[in-house]
Amino acid sequence: MKYSVDLNCDMGESFGRYKIGYDEQMMHYISSANIACGFHAGDPSIMKHTVKLALERQVAIGAHPGLPDLAGFGRRMMNITPEEAYDYVLYQVGALSAFVRAEGGRLRHVKPHGALYNMAAINKDLSRGISEAIYKLDPEIILYGLAGSRLIEAGRASGLQTCSEVFADRTYQPDGTLTPRSQPDSLLTDDHQAVGQVIKMVKHNKVGTPAGEIEIKAETICIHGDGEHALSFAQKINDAFKKEGIQRLQHG
Amino acid sequence: MKYSVDLNCDMGESFGRYKIGYDEQMMHYISSANIACGFHAGDPSIMKHTVKLALERQVAIGAHPGLPDLAGFGRRMMNITPEEAYDYVLYQVGALSAFVRAEGGRLRHVKPHGALYNMAAINKDLSRGISEAIYKLDPEIILYGLAGSRLIEAGRASGLQTCSEVFADRTYQPDGTLTPRSQPDSLLTDDHQAVGQVIKMVKHNKVGTPAGEIEIKAETICIHGDGEHALSFAQKINDAFKKEGIQRLQHG
Amino acid sequence: MKYSVDLNCDMGESFGRYKIGYDEQMMHYISSANIACGFHAGDPSIMKHTVKLALERQVAIGAHPGLPDLAGFGRRMMNITPEEAYDYVLYQVGALSAFVRAEGGRLRHVKPHGALYNMAAINKDLSRGISEAIYKLDPEIILYGLAGSRLIEAGRASGLQTCSEVFADRTYQPDGTLTPRSQPDSLLTDDHQAVGQVIKMVKHNKVGTPAGEIEIKAETICIHGDGEHALSFAQKINDAFKKEGIQRLQHG
Amino acid sequence: MKYSVDLNCDMGESFGRYKIGYDEQMMHYISSANIACGFHAGDPSIMKHTVKLALERQVAIGAHPGLPDLAGFGRRMMNITPEEAYDYVLYQVGALSAFVRAEGGRLRHVKPHGALYNMAAINKDLSRGISEAIYKLDPEIILYGLAGSRLIEAGRASGLQTCSEVFADRTYQPDGTLTPRSQPDSLLTDDHQAVGQVIKMVKHNKVGTPAGEIEIKAETICIHGDGEHALSFAQKINDAFKKEGIQRLQHG
Repeated sequence: MKYSVDLNCDMGESFGRYKIGYDEQMMHYISSANIACGFHAGDPSIMKHTVKLALERQVAIGAHPGLPDLAGFGRRMMNITPEEAYDYVLYQVGALSAFVRAEGGRLRHVKPHGALYNMAAINKDLSRGISEAIYKLDPEIILYGLAGSRLIEAGRASGLQTCSEVFADRTYQPDGTLTPRSQPDSLLTDDHQAVGQVIKMVKHNKVGTPAGEIEIKAETICIHGDGEHALSFAQKINDAFKKEGIQRLQHG
Repeated sequence: MKYSVDLNCDMGESFGRYKIGYDEQMMHYISSANIACGFHAGDPSIMKHTVKLALERQVAIGAHPGLPDLAGFGRRMMNITPEEAYDYVLYQVGALSAFVRAEGGRLRHVKPHGALYNMAAINKDLSRGISEAIYKLDPEIILYGLAGSRLIEAGRASGLQTCSEVFADRTYQPDGTLTPRSQPDSLLTDDHQAVGQVIKMVKHNKVGTPAGEIEIKAETICIHGDGEHALSFAQKINDAFKKEGIQRLQHG
Repeated sequence: MKYSVDLNCDMGESFGRYKIGYDEQMMHYISSANIACGFHAGDPSIMKHTVKLALERQVAIGAHPGLPDLAGFGRRMMNITPEEAYDYVLYQVGALSAFVRAEGGRLRHVKPHGALYNMAAINKDLSRGISEAIYKLDPEIILYGLAGSRLIEAGRASGLQTCSEVFADRTYQPDGTLTPRSQPDSLLTDDHQAVGQVIKMVKHNKVGTPAGEIEIKAETICIHGDGEHALSFAQKINDAFKKEGIQRLQHG
Repeated sequence: MKYSVDLNCDMGESFGRYKIGYDEQMMHYISSANIACGFHAGDPSIMKHTVKLALERQVAIGAHPGLPDLAGFGRRMMNITPEEAYDYVLYQVGALSAFVRAEGGRLRHVKPHGALYNMAAINKDLSRGISEAIYKLDPEIILYGLAGSRLIEAGRASGLQTCSEVFADRTYQPDGTLTPRSQPDSLLTDDHQAVGQVIKMVKHNKVGTPAGEIEIKAETICIHGDGEHALSFAQKINDAFKKEGIQRLQHG
């Protein structure tokens, strides 16, 4: 049997003179780049640059819309309405898609960022707002969301193709949600464990939780693009894929 | 002989709880709406609302990108590079076009706003940045710019169709530029005079200056959407058009 | 027996070219102006202008800090930490106090705005962050907060003098909280009823609720500065005060 | 003869999750920290942190106000009025001074940032706006400005004490202005040369230009806090001071 999986990474999260991430190097290790759109991070110049980089490296391009909170990097929950979610996503995805179109590329997916992603995971109305914005812009765009979440449900209900995302370095709860970052055991800091979790998710559709293994759908793996270990972890997971006969998807 | 002309107005310049302009009523009097894109004014919710309004009233939709200066309403000159102009215009036009596309409409034109418009009028490189952004997004989009300006030249050089704009309530210099607002006689405050200037520009391609009449190309007339006289002036100019046998274009 | 009460109004909530409120006229009817500080509304130029206006009219000046959300007018709940609340309040109050000091005035009070006010009303830690920022800047500053709220408690615990605020046009719940705006009966739209509620709160320290009257401490009354009825309601409440022998405080 | 000079560095220029500069280490090498105030860089949390750091290290604290242009790091010229300069400076200096006061410190100086500094250097009206804002807030604050510039003149005319700034790594023109960064020879990239220039400015009040040496008043030296060489250059200049008998001032 042959396994394959998408590997995605958030990119283009610099702003003006401020730099975050190892975008250029990370492009070698991934299938899909989620490019920030100027609300939680990114700016028009960085969007253009990152789109070009992804096209050169034949990495699939996605929009990574977030909350309008640069100071909080889009990680602080804000009480927006489903209609505002629709408006914010449509605005940002439209802006990014212009850069993609100008370079002759194609916008393949959308993955909400940070607090917007997390709120949508548990909020049906917000998820519907997000999904409809994408569908009305282009029904061919694929929606990335947390595996088993409301966002995936809403995306399908809206007519979108979806891609269920799992995390290499986060632990899971018995109900399939991520352990909140506020809890001490929310992160897998050991690379070996993280790689092992990914392999199991991809090959067996299972993940360990404090109450035993549960089913999980792993269509795309999120790896992080900044922090000390980003590049070495990306290398490790690609090495493990080769060893385990898992193909990293290439959509380009 | 039959005359016809486009009549355009800046729209969607409210922001959040802040309201500017009489967009709804003004739609009755114009051919084309230039919709703010969130940099100098406007926000995603207002963009959606204004796009819907224009489609209902069969008014042609244009993007109205500006400098990233909400506090200054995009009217303060900022020393941006031609590449930044490209990036800012592409971002904003892309964002607006997403709302237009989501509603089943078509983005017909782009008109830069305020200081970006004025800087482009005299700066070849900035104008080229703006024009290329538009062309690369969609070569069918029409570029609105000051009649006789560098922006019109650059737009044509980039392969865009252009539309030469004249102003009803501004006075002109012998070289065809607008009298700067800092000068006392920059505005025509008398409606009768302003209407007369428009009629002459449309029918005879001429406008008066302190050194006598000069040639001017009047493909679109800009009227303002806020201020006390906006609606009554819009009514007057439409009335004058009827009387003079000038057809207000309808692109819808 | 003699009654007196502070009457406060949010002011300086315009931004750039965007105008909100009838600040100039409203100054005639109030004791205290809460001046926006540039996060949810207001900008440096408007702050200066509003401070001058209050000093001319001998209206006491307060800072009105909000969440960093101009697009949402500071009304959308954001998940900020108590430390961020401290930082945001200290920044904004410091900025406003500079304008007051430059004009030879004195900053008398601070009243948080919108979602920050509402979150603080029920959140002890957030309220402590806010209170400590004010105390460390100047322990003489008076903290305005919802009567009976956590914010008033935290202010006192921090060593600040507090001022318990009641609302003319909002209805109350049996536990002393405001009826949420999402409920149909949250607002008193009848001026007569609203004035009556204020008189009872000031004279008898009581307010009606669906479960009967409860005790309430009314040290300051909030009236609104924008909307159609703002000025006429301000006039009515001042007239009622005269008739009822209630003195509107003047701190100037 | 004994020489002494102030050594200043821009600090607190991170924003949210974005980090710039080696503030903590750089504090060892300087007399005075110019702390960003949230317009071109910095945010309330970073301002608090940087103020605390400076107080711990007994480094004198200054405000470093800039243009409202985070995306351009305050380096893009914007056409603001002298009154807006007054408002922007008063706002930012007030905000920073609140953090200083809350920590029991004292705001010693103000140094405008980037394009605001450069525009003020040659613009009398802008310089007067800046100077008056500072004077009206606190006439004891010292104004840092380019040696020989309009800003220094305006500061003195306003009644402020001024401090004439020179640059270690920039070259000078015969008229005493800095060689524009757009020119190829604007920077001294050789540390040895840069240190030599500083020593000559401090000891002999002279600096070389293409047309020979000119007089220059060197009351404070600006060194940069980011970039690869920042810390090693700071070390070198401190070493040279010791060797040359120049005392780095300590105001703490």
